[in-house]
This record gives sequence, structure tokens and C-alpha cells, in this order.
Amino acid sequence: MKNLGIIEEKLSKRVKQVSSLVCVGLDSDLEKLPVRFLKQKQPQLAFNKWIIKQTHQDVCAYKPNLAFYEARGALGWQELALTAQYLRANYPEVVLIADAKRADIGSTNQGYVTAIFDELGFDAVTLNPYLGQEALQPFLDRQDKACIILCRTSNPGAGEFQDLITNGKPLWQTVAQQVSDKWNQARNCMLVVGATYPAELAQIREIVGEMTLLVPGVGAQGGDLQAVLQAGLTNSNQGLIINSSRGIIFARDPQQAVKNLQQEINDCF
Amino acid sequence: MKNLGIIEEKLSKRVKQVSSLVCVGLDSDLEKLPVRFLKQKQPQLAFNKWIIKQTHQDVCAYKPNLAFYEARGALGWQELALTAQYLRANYPEVVLIADAKRADIGSTNQGYVTAIFDELGFDAVTLNPYLGQEALQPFLDRQDKACIILCRTSNPGAGEFQDLITNGKPLWQTVAQQVSDKWNQARNCMLVVGATYPAELAQIREIVGEMTLLVPGVGAQGGDLQAVLQAGLTNSNQGLIINSSRGIIFARDPQQAVKNLQQEINDCF
Repeated sequence: MKNLGIIEEKLSKRVKQVSSLVCVGLDSDLEKLPVRFLKQKQPQLAFNKWIIKQTHQDVCAYKPNLAFYEARGALGWQELALTAQYLRANYPEVVLIADAKRADIGSTNQGYVTAIFDELGFDAVTLNPYLGQEALQPFLDRQDKACIILCRTSNPGAGEFQDLITNGKPLWQTVAQQVSDKWNQARNCMLVVGATYPAELAQIREIVGEMTLLVPGVGAQGGDLQAVLQAGLTNSNQGLIINSSRGIIFARDPQQAVKNLQQEINDCF
Repeated sequence: MKNLGIIEEKLSKRVKQVSSLVCVGLDSDLEKLPVRFLKQKQPQLAFNKWIIKQTHQDVCAYKPNLAFYEARGALGWQELALTAQYLRANYPEVVLIADAKRADIGSTNQGYVTAIFDELGFDAVTLNPYLGQEALQPFLDRQDKACIILCRTSNPGAGEFQDLITNGKPLWQTVAQQVSDKWNQARNCMLVVGATYPAELAQIREIVGEMTLLVPGVGAQGGDLQAVLQAGLTNSNQGLIINSSRGIIFARDPQQAVKNLQQEINDCF
């Protein structure tokens, strides 16, 4: 049995509690919200609460993407902060992931660490590896949090640099290797691997052992769920966080959409 | 004479107007502000206005790094927005760069495009190349703005992935090549190249022709200014934006610090 990090421990407990690997992406784009929320004073917050109330009993994690809140400036940040606060107060056992894809030089990253981990109170953040471990150290030093590094992203053009061959293997493999071998000293690293690339996901699972993989790209982006599970589940039927955003929050019945995805996953075990 | 993009044109005009390649990084970390600003209602805004008043006649650009504002949540965003608004209203000829180092999948980037270009009104944004051109297209489509892509970053550990050899050359060279050959259709691309790596800067200049390079890392980070200018200036003594942040805004006399840097640069011509 491997030695779990603090957030992996929290995640594993929650996954067992609700029998669900589903993460709901709170990508609450103002332009796509049902009109009844637009009339409210804090439309993104109201929408998020509505989604959370319907889905919390079937999810292991929530993952707002910061872009959809920043698009509204200070107002959006406030609603993001209130969403995180609401989740921490009411569903403290659910893992909160800030999909921020940040990376700056070392001293500057401290600003993002403060913002995302301390001010907003997220358990985990997505990070871009291009600047290297040394730059991301202020995140990696936080043993009480998780750093989810982009490895193989879900977008169609992900391969432009990620597929370049260095030392006989594609860049995304080197990223997986470095994170697994060197960055994970505090046992707080995870990786992002798009559901749209299940073959790559299988190779990443080989490289990183039981490290948790955050998998976006099922649903709207068209990833193959069964292939993903076959490629990525660990022996204990864990090790994956399966994210769906638009496919759930903008479904006609979000509660049913989560249950369907959860069922579809659990049927594969 | 090459065909300049809209923001390059604005930059070139401003550089000639004030004879300065200096960009001031408004990295207005609350914890480092002089105590007299901390007593004010909007300390970062008040500090920025004070810096701008002393320095505007000698700079071609300002570059706030978003991390230092996000660290304060919605309050910080508001002061960032007011800083940008103040600059646009009073010094419309100065180029405004958002140092955000963003990158997400295509549809999500639209949120950042709205936030940074439209809501905050910046002329340019720094972007991370790891997800590829296809993902960044919502930024690249904005002919009226500039996309400044991280190529060779200034941090000591930049080489972990950026130096990996692919097709016989380091990754940062491939990034420079791709941006120059393919991403720059709207003539709105620039690159970030750290002053701490002047040899790499010279090679990047060879690859990208007269493309503008944003150069952080002089001052506090220890980059060699003379080597940078020798390596990066174009024939018209332009093509570089030389950024200094802490070295100017936290200097005993910021006005003199800018003038010194400007003089030091112009003495090299």
C-alpha cells in the first residue's frame, strides 16, 4: 500500500464514500447560464449552488475553471470565492480543484499560491510545466495541497510541442517521468491527461505508478470513457478523477447527468 | 521595411517618442509596499499611480503581473482594473502588457481573452506555449492585440524542459520557429526571452527576424544588459522591450532608477 499524500487521502476517502470518480467542472460561463440565474444579483454563485445541491452526493470533486470567473473581473472573483466558501462550509469532504493552469517564476508564483490555496481555500490547482520544477516550487512546497501538472492536454492540437521526441520519447512522457521521479517529494503531485488520448494515458499510468490522474475531455470533447478507465484505473479501482463540465452543468437534468456518468464508470469495474 | 502589427506599431511610435525601451513591471506586491500606501483605501492602485506619475515620461510600456493582484482576490482585481483604466485614460500611447502567462484549451481561453483584452483593456498578454497554437487561437485571432509567447524564461530552472533537444535543437528554438513561421499570421506575436540567457537570445533573434522580444530579468534577477542589447537589438535599435520590476518600483527613487536604466540602454547604441 503506498503512502498517500494529504489530498490524495481526502480524495480516496471521498471516492469510497460516494462510489464515484466523477468531478464536476463548474465552468459557469455567464453567457450560457439559464436566464433565471441571469436575473439574480450573483448569477454564477446562484447557478453553482443550484448545480452543487443536485450533484454533491455523487461527486468526489468540483473543479471551477478560473477563466469563466475572471471574464467578469472582480465580480467574477467574488462569486468564485463565495462558491469555494460555500463548498468548504457545506461539503468539506469534497475535493476542490482550481483549474487555473498557472506557472510563473518562483517568487511570483507565491502570489498565486496565496490566492488559490489560502484566500480561495482550494485543495488543489492545475499547473503548467513549461517553466520547470524550480519555478513551481512555491506550489510544490505545500504538502497540505495538491499540484496537478499538465502532462498531455485534451485539446486537438496538444501534440504540437507535447509530442516532440526528446531522448527517444515524447515530451509528455518526460514531463510524467520528471514529476513522478523528482517533483513529488511531498507526495502532492498529480497529472492532467486528456480523455481524448487513452493510449497516452496507459503509458503515463505505467510511468507514474499509482499517482492520481485528472482526466478532462469526456462528454463535450468526445473522449472514450471505457478506454480511459481501462488505461488508467489502478488496482483499487481508483487513481482517476473523471471530469465533465458542460456535459453536466448545462445538461437538461444535471443530477441525472452525473448519475449517468457515475453509473457508466462503475459499470466498467 | 517590414509590415508591423498594430501593437508593434504603437510600441515603435512610443519608443521613438521617449527614446526608451524600458518597460516597468508593476509587480506591486502588497507586502512590499511602503507603509504610507498601506494606509490608503486602495493601496496597490495608489502605489501604481505614484510609480506611473514618476516614470511615464521614460517608458514605452507597463507590465503588471496578475499574480500580485490575484493574491488579494476581488479587491486586487479591482485595483488592477483601475490601474489599467488610469493608464488608458492618461497615457494612451504607452503599451499595456498583462503578464498573465495564461493558456487553456480553445473555448476556455475565450474567458481570458474577454478578461484581459476587453474588460481590462490591455494591449498585450503573455501566454504559455505548452498547449500549442490550436488552443491559443482565441488570443491569436485578435489582430488588434499582441500575444507574447513564453519562449526562454528567465528563471534558473528554465532549462528542465525548454532545453530538451528535439529534432536536433532545444525546445525553446522550436517554440521560436513555430511562433515565427506559423502562429504569427495576424502579425501580433512577440516572444518572452529572459535577460539571464543572452546567448539564447541571440539565436532567437536569428530565427524570428525583427519580431519584438519582451526581456525580463535585468535588475533583481541579474541579467547582463549589455549582452542582451548586443544580442537582441534590430537594425533600427528596436525589437526589444526591456522590463525591470522590483529594480524600479521598489528603488529608493523610482524616477531616477528608470532614467538610469534608460541611459544605460541608450549608451549601448
